[in-house]
Amino acid sequence: MSQVTVAVFGASGYTGLELLRLLARHPKVELVALTSREYQGRPVGQVFPALARIIRQDFIPPDPEQVAGRAQFVFTAVPHQTAMELVPRLLAAGCRVVDLSADFRFRDRAVYEAWYQPHCAPELLAEAVYGLPELHRDKIARARLVGNPGCYPTAVILGLAPLVQSRRVRLDSLIADCKSGVSGAGRGASLATSFCEVADSFRAYKVFEHRHTPEMEQELSLLAEEPVRLTFTPHLVPMNRGILATLYATLTAPASEAEIYRLYEEFYAGEPFVRLLPPGALPTTAQVRGTNFCDLGLKVHPEGDRVIVVAAIDNLGRGAAAQAVCNFNLMAGFPETTGLEAAPLTP
Amino acid sequence: MSQVTVAVFGASGYTGLELLRLLARHPKVELVALTSREYQGRPVGQVFPALARIIRQDFIPPDPEQVAGRAQFVFTAVPHQTAMELVPRLLAAGCRVVDLSADFRFRDRAVYEAWYQPHCAPELLAEAVYGLPELHRDKIARARLVGNPGCYPTAVILGLAPLVQSRRVRLDSLIADCKSGVSGAGRGASLATSFCEVADSFRAYKVFEHRHTPEMEQELSLLAEEPVRLTFTPHLVPMNRGILATLYATLTAPASEAEIYRLYEEFYAGEPFVRLLPPGALPTTAQVRGTNFCDLGLKVHPEGDRVIVVAAIDNLGRGAAAQAVCNFNLMAGFPETTGLEAAPLTP
Amino acid sequence: MSQVTVAVFGASGYTGLELLRLLARHPKVELVALTSREYQGRPVGQVFPALARIIRQDFIPPDPEQVAGRAQFVFTAVPHQTAMELVPRLLAAGCRVVDLSADFRFRDRAVYEAWYQPHCAPELLAEAVYGLPELHRDKIARARLVGNPGCYPTAVILGLAPLVQSRRVRLDSLIADCKSGVSGAGRGASLATSFCEVADSFRAYKVFEHRHTPEMEQELSLLAEEPVRLTFTPHLVPMNRGILATLYATLTAPASEAEIYRLYEEFYAGEPFVRLLPPGALPTTAQVRGTNFCDLGLKVHPEGDRVIVVAAIDNLGRGAAAQAVCNFNLMAGFPETTGLEAAPLTP
Amino acid sequence: MSQVTVAVFGASGYTGLELLRLLARHPKVELVALTSREYQGRPVGQVFPALARIIRQDFIPPDPEQVAGRAQFVFTAVPHQTAMELVPRLLAAGCRVVDLSADFRFRDRAVYEAWYQPHCAPELLAEAVYGLPELHRDKIARARLVGNPGCYPTAVILGLAPLVQSRRVRLDSLIADCKSGVSGAGRGASLATSFCEVADSFRAYKVFEHRHTPEMEQELSLLAEEPVRLTFTPHLVPMNRGILATLYATLTAPASEAEIYRLYEEFYAGEPFVRLLPPGALPTTAQVRGTNFCDLGLKVHPEGDRVIVVAAIDNLGRGAAAQAVCNFNLMAGFPETTGLEAAPLTP
Repeated sequence: MSQVTVAVFGASGYTGLELLRLLARHPKVELVALTSREYQGRPVGQVFPALARIIRQDFIPPDPEQVAGRAQFVFTAVPHQTAMELVPRLLAAGCRVVDLSADFRFRDRAVYEAWYQPHCAPELLAEAVYGLPELHRDKIARARLVGNPGCYPTAVILGLAPLVQSRRVRLDSLIADCKSGVSGAGRGASLATSFCEVADSFRAYKVFEHRHTPEMEQELSLLAEEPVRLTFTPHLVPMNRGILATLYATLTAPASEAEIYRLYEEFYAGEPFVRLLPPGALPTTAQVRGTNFCDLGLKVHPEGDRVIVVAAIDNLGRGAAAQAVCNFNLMAGFPETTGLEAAPLTP
Repeated sequence: MSQVTVAVFGASGYTGLELLRLLARHPKVELVALTSREYQGRPVGQVFPALARIIRQDFIPPDPEQVAGRAQFVFTAVPHQTAMELVPRLLAAGCRVVDLSADFRFRDRAVYEAWYQPHCAPELLAEAVYGLPELHRDKIARARLVGNPGCYPTAVILGLAPLVQSRRVRLDSLIADCKSGVSGAGRGASLATSFCEVADSFRAYKVFEHRHTPEMEQELSLLAEEPVRLTFTPHLVPMNRGILATLYATLTAPASEAEIYRLYEEFYAGEPFVRLLPPGALPTTAQVRGTNFCDLGLKVHPEGDRVIVVAAIDNLGRGAAAQAVCNFNLMAGFPETTGLEAAPLTP
Repeated sequence: MSQVTVAVFGASGYTGLELLRLLARHPKVELVALTSREYQGRPVGQVFPALARIIRQDFIPPDPEQVAGRAQFVFTAVPHQTAMELVPRLLAAGCRVVDLSADFRFRDRAVYEAWYQPHCAPELLAEAVYGLPELHRDKIARARLVGNPGCYPTAVILGLAPLVQSRRVRLDSLIADCKSGVSGAGRGASLATSFCEVADSFRAYKVFEHRHTPEMEQELSLLAEEPVRLTFTPHLVPMNRGILATLYATLTAPASEAEIYRLYEEFYAGEPFVRLLPPGALPTTAQVRGTNFCDLGLKVHPEGDRVIVVAAIDNLGRGAAAQAVCNFNLMAGFPETTGLEAAPLTP
Repeated sequence: MSQVTVAVFGASGYTGLELLRLLARHPKVELVALTSREYQGRPVGQVFPALARIIRQDFIPPDPEQVAGRAQFVFTAVPHQTAMELVPRLLAAGCRVVDLSADFRFRDRAVYEAWYQPHCAPELLAEAVYGLPELHRDKIARARLVGNPGCYPTAVILGLAPLVQSRRVRLDSLIADCKSGVSGAGRGASLATSFCEVADSFRAYKVFEHRHTPEMEQELSLLAEEPVRLTFTPHLVPMNRGILATLYATLTAPASEAEIYRLYEEFYAGEPFVRLLPPGALPTTAQVRGTNFCDLGLKVHPEGDRVIVVAAIDNLGRGAAAQAVCNFNLMAGFPETTGLEAAPLTP
């Protein structure tokens, strides 16, 4: 398939910027429209000097009909609520959409509305596909609308999927202790993410209250074929990028580390973007920086009753923009890795 | 009581340095000897320019008999194994000792030897007091030898003590997901703690294998009056100082957050160095930087079955040197807070 | 002299917080009023958990007459322009004031107005004393109003004073390349100081335009007894605290490093808060963290024609709050070092 | 031209790693040999998990004759002194070499030997080409041996070249105040680059003594066609990557900012890897992260007598590996930008 035309809505947040970084060098993409309410009319490379020479366009106003006429595919990197108003208009105009907000991640409208707000396009929830390729690859390929997963859910679901699907763990024992870099909070100025409030410090936040909880539970329940309840605790790390999820579960029957390791090997056999580390090794966030990889390591307690899985992703990459590009590749019929081959930037 | 004479063995590691910082300004302390194998013969203020003008002595060789004749109290901030050889000689010479290594933290020689190495002074284990003032204040005051707690155990034990002692939680449900600043790894040069390997990254390490595990289990078992087994996972945070412990437990019977909060209020009533945050608030490591505080916050799940406690300490302060000074104050009969009143340095 | 009553206006910015940290433990200070427009009515220890247990008061509204009746001394840590309106009212009510804004640092109203805005209390400029103790100690002691120096000027003036006063350098050759931690930008939320814009990056800003330039030139001109023009370039370092000033000058006549070193030794002989490092050594910002020290190191080129002086301070300490406390000590007749003895926090 | 065979010597330092990152995705490169004394025999992706799946080879021993038989081009990323022994053997075996050490950067053996050590392959100095494409593009293309520039010199020479070549500045007025991320110090463990010694701190080092000084002076003297002496001060920034050079010069005759800006526009017209920012803007190191860009901004003092140029590069990218790849592209006849098109990673 030859090049396709692509637009990005909300191209000036950190997720939008990461999309631009990836799409600007994607061999099958022609970027035709980049919208930004804040910077409309200004050259991308002037607002973001990192992109000077790389993107030679101006930001344009976020007008869906205008954009839809020019783009076959649209990435919407706008806040939730804005997305649910925007996406139906893009679909109506004939675009296929990867939405990076939370608005189209949920199958159950009631769950969405309990954690977010009333949904104004609930009819699309049945159609939208949850964009985790390892779980829903075929549906993604045929989808008109993909709800791109949240950053924490991506790490947690990939980390727990083999255990949950195989029913090797007690479903009431799951704990996800997650740690994220600051870019996960977005690009807006706030005291909570200002340098001096974050640097040389560490903290938990939104304990028992984070909106990514139901998203994890939805997908894990699908895998388990029964309701799964998860304890999820997010933390803020003084770093730019990266999520590390430390995942705890109690095994239903004693198992060796080798057995559990084999389970993961089989589950992720052939997956281009999941790297299971050698036995005994655990991942760092740096080793996936800038990529779509999810790196996994695991340990089983010598007594064989408890397992700890550690998952590392780049929250802006696999946790947002790179996974969105991967979903787009599937939708457009390109090899899944197109435009996502760059090696991690480290150190 | 008037001033007492004090020596520090191993005064040039990060723990030793923090001891010097605190002891140099302690109103009841006369520093009479600071040993350093590496820097012996050199002025402290030249090796550590931060201490210029503040400490005007030279480092001396680590000769226990020489030092013992001059000091009533000795802090030993040397590696484990070195400590067990040194401490008996200091005691024999009449000193009282706060040992900051792991060598005198265990009641059970077998546990120590299973996790560390053969113990050459096992006869002292029965006498040594585990230096967590909130649990063993009276014994500390009378002790000749205090085994100063490890950094992670300090945070974990203080965070879980009220739940464990009250038996409000299932003892097989305890998980301590802990995050530490890099100074916890000590001052030696190593690739693993070099700037570019740590900065803008995050990782877990020594999963199921960290030597602080049995220390936590010893103290929690004492509180529970039955054996407690804990899952403990340490992580490395790109920051200098601080430990945050995120502690998970399943309640034996449903409880409200207010009930559990009251339990903590009562347990720590009157404690000068434990600050229970207002209901709903969770601590950051920055808010205890440089101090002996342990700050605690907690959340109970709306369903009343799970509790998360978050404990924050400064790993070099409460997790090492400041707690050692606090123990010394108790031993010497000074008010517990003497020399430890400085406010946290933030940002 | 016994305790004096002290108020802090603008106690909730980073400079205000640092004042609270120091004054809370100052043995001669009774803190009687802490104002904050934003947080009035709320307990200090709730807004800033670091100060829980340490300061048990509430923030009050910034009403000068109300406060003036209770405090002999007032620190004003409010933005410039606010200060010039506030300070006359405090003086009129009988307080002595250390102002941490720029409003009372200039002798020449025209200079102030060229770089800032019209001055509404110009009659006080002749009376106000520039609060750099090493240069104006006697006047500070007698002052009713001290204009506390800016952070960059403190480092630059102390670093260059011996060279400029002795006329050993060409006055048209002075360059101050300065690097500051992020807390220097204050506590307000802004994109420019958000974590992800600052971390793992470095930049210059306000080249040829920074308002601290005329302040440096005023004091250096006084020392030189003729107009001095300085090239000053500020940079932002991904760290919380600290300023390092790298100062370049061309010597009027060839000199050895030993000669220039001696000049500094003599100039700062007996100064409690200037530490000249041993010959050949250069300071780091970490070694002065949390203190009022200004650490100096210097190098003369082997050809004897150029000198580089490196000055390190804590921008919130010596560059703001600690120096303000030092000025207060002088004004109140206390030993200059009272309440400022704590050793640097490192690492 | 089709693919060429390439080897990397010293592939396990930070510079070597960055070469692997770039070469692994270079469309014209077949990587045939990666040597590492330390890790020989081990899979690259196991030693560096970031490269798992990306490079599927093992490190091999550093045997030049063995490697030479398989590779047309060799990158030598070994320490100086090692390089001068290795390179002649590679050349003798028919390879073309980009050497990333200092050993082949100098035209004048005496200068090299005054700053480094005796040179054992001085006959190659006349042949070796200094690998700064903007200055020596044609010679590089024909070279058998390129001496890849140092990181600081790259930023400083590119920043000053237009001023020096045009003789618009006094050649005795040049000052380069440079700041580097920690990866510039290499991957070896040392106390000086350990996290806690670097984080939240800032310092100057090797004032008047850094070995990059003569390298800058060589190239600037060539441009000026007379000897240039430069004052160069390196500093260490708590960040992984990046160099910012703040460059000071006195103009020989008053000039407007627009005039000097035009000079830079013309000098770098058509250069793919030098981005002159819009008038008034200054670069950050983050905006070039991971790339071969050198971003430039400049300011002229309103009085027209002084100019400040700020240059930003990635020390591992443009300052080492990316520039080496660019030189290789020129040597091999590929478009200069091949394999170097990726956009900067930011934040």
